[in-house]
Amino acid sequence: MISAERLLSAIAELAAIGGRPDGGVDRVAGGEADRAGRLWVQERMREAGLRAEIDGTGNVIGTPSGAPPWLLLGSHTDTVPAGGRLDGAYGVVAALEVARSLRHPRLAAADFADEEGVVGTGGLTGSTALCSSPRRADFGAYLELHIEQGPRLETAGLDLGVVTGIVGIDHHEVRFTGAANHAGTTPMAMRRDAGAAAGRLLSGLPGLLAGVDPEMVGNIGDVRLEPGAPNVVPGLARLVVELRALDPGSLVRARAALGVIAEGAAAEFGCSVGINSLAAVAPSPMDPGLVAAVEAACAATGRGHRRLVSGAGHDAGVMARHLPAAMLFVPSRGGVSHNPEEQTADEHLVLGAQVLLASALFWLGSMENPSL
Amino acid sequence: MISAERLLSAIAELAAIGGRPDGGVDRVAGGEADRAGRLWVQERMREAGLRAEIDGTGNVIGTPSGAPPWLLLGSHTDTVPAGGRLDGAYGVVAALEVARSLRHPRLAAADFADEEGVVGTGGLTGSTALCSSPRRADFGAYLELHIEQGPRLETAGLDLGVVTGIVGIDHHEVRFTGAANHAGTTPMAMRRDAGAAAGRLLSGLPGLLAGVDPEMVGNIGDVRLEPGAPNVVPGLARLVVELRALDPGSLVRARAALGVIAEGAAAEFGCSVGINSLAAVAPSPMDPGLVAAVEAACAATGRGHRRLVSGAGHDAGVMARHLPAAMLFVPSRGGVSHNPEEQTADEHLVLGAQVLLASALFWLGSMENPSL
Repeated sequence: MISAERLLSAIAELAAIGGRPDGGVDRVAGGEADRAGRLWVQERMREAGLRAEIDGTGNVIGTPSGAPPWLLLGSHTDTVPAGGRLDGAYGVVAALEVARSLRHPRLAAADFADEEGVVGTGGLTGSTALCSSPRRADFGAYLELHIEQGPRLETAGLDLGVVTGIVGIDHHEVRFTGAANHAGTTPMAMRRDAGAAAGRLLSGLPGLLAGVDPEMVGNIGDVRLEPGAPNVVPGLARLVVELRALDPGSLVRARAALGVIAEGAAAEFGCSVGINSLAAVAPSPMDPGLVAAVEAACAATGRGHRRLVSGAGHDAGVMARHLPAAMLFVPSRGGVSHNPEEQTADEHLVLGAQVLLASALFWLGSMENPSL
Repeated sequence: MISAERLLSAIAELAAIGGRPDGGVDRVAGGEADRAGRLWVQERMREAGLRAEIDGTGNVIGTPSGAPPWLLLGSHTDTVPAGGRLDGAYGVVAALEVARSLRHPRLAAADFADEEGVVGTGGLTGSTALCSSPRRADFGAYLELHIEQGPRLETAGLDLGVVTGIVGIDHHEVRFTGAANHAGTTPMAMRRDAGAAAGRLLSGLPGLLAGVDPEMVGNIGDVRLEPGAPNVVPGLARLVVELRALDPGSLVRARAALGVIAEGAAAEFGCSVGINSLAAVAPSPMDPGLVAAVEAACAATGRGHRRLVSGAGHDAGVMARHLPAAMLFVPSRGGVSHNPEEQTADEHLVLGAQVLLASALFWLGSMENPSL
């Protein structure tokens, strides 16, 4: 059984490493607090009866006494600058608590290195390295508990979320080219205004996505107009469209629709447009069997739960490309994350760890009794 | 009579002061080349029979031997960085040529200081200072010859433009406030996207202006989204809307329409919006009698001409608030200005000076024979 007191005090103890006066945490990957946090995790793993080592990447891996394959529970303890005390840390502490409670010979735990990618690595460094190493073969499945970092569970009044997959993320750079001209002496009809064309995309993206896939999301977070003076018609507009969806087909269709809207906007304002792909991370569906197991564990609590897609990246997305993986979410107050204000009710923190334990037991039981 | 050879060689001589290898000119107000240019102008004024002095602001004022009121011909010789050889300089050299040709006791010439405002003064410094000084009373009227700096004459195949007024310029800052959120975990329906709201304004401004006053122009030259990351929904969008019109009513109606569109865009995307006026320069209508005189001088050449509004600011706009003023334009090739590529055909440069002389003669004649 989960000890609520031990779980919550462990969360508080880890939050003090790199803790900020405002309640947030600075434990950026590779920094002193990050290293101190990983030594703390290593020590807790040993207390839970695991052999705990820190590998060359910074992963803390705790392995049990039994023979592989092992069930791996984990997340990460690095944070963004001025991050919250739960993003990643909660999943690691819950894994430690489950390991300590069960002391099962096939249960392993991981604190992955540099999930956030603050220092320009792109993130997910530790889980990616593990999956590239021969050690990967020791693990039969992966489970990760995490705060939602979004508002859907809270808004729906639900206590638990079963993640069916982690979205793929495409970044498309769009460049409208018009003509920079004097904004006083150039008649409106003779302008080639790249900013006006970009405006069509800024305001048109939400409708575009709704038409393609109501579950997907997309964003234009910044736009640059050049030369960028109030009295010069913008001759160039650059923006990056981010598209996220679990269904790869949705990403393809959204890119096609983006092209149609961009060409129309360019034509309307006498511009040309070019779109090129900057980056693409493929979607990571979770393992259907594990998802069903986590869902059954949720149902057994009698608490409200739903399936959902994770719009944010997680180590589970990397792991899912190599072995069966699943994720469980608990609500984030106000959907806030990557922020000292990040919060989840204690009740939900304990509930999540309980469901993680029950889900782990399901997998461990099925390994001992494969006919189930 | 104008000497075409003397006019063109004087333009070339002045262009060599601060001249660039690419054919452009660097004669930014207050710099060494600007001072050298003004000394050159002072010397040419003296050759034209004027008393020429450089005042404390940097204005070079050449005054005739007769009693005031005088007709003042002028423009400026300062440039933007990497400017062209004609913007301002042409009007000064043409004024010198007319003064030298006519040697009329009531004809004065000016090379105004710091028209461009490159160094953060706002520009029009010299003409504004002259109008604030007691010397203003010596001048009965002002005529300025300038390149169009826009494409309208060339596009219409016309050789001369008679300026009926200089637009007023209003700058309105628009701030959309939404909520910065994780672009992966926040469902589309729960976003308050300030960038999407700003997009409606960027693409909607041309249509708005067409509905208010087809002759007016407006521009959004830059937009800033905050925090400005591809994976964060923009919580704040700031932009400056520049409006230009000769009719003050058009500026008022455009501001009202801007408010309607901005409120609609804010409501559509769950944002709030604030608009505040940053700056307003009132329109400067030219003097109807002088405009008619310049137009008559154009007609006398038999060359194609039209009335037009100047969308750019000029010293004539300042002068027109204090005494009768008018302006004459010659075509700019491709409408290009504030650029080393700035060009006007020699034929047009000579024609403009001829019409300036004829217009001056009209005013000087009417002073000698007020009954005309």
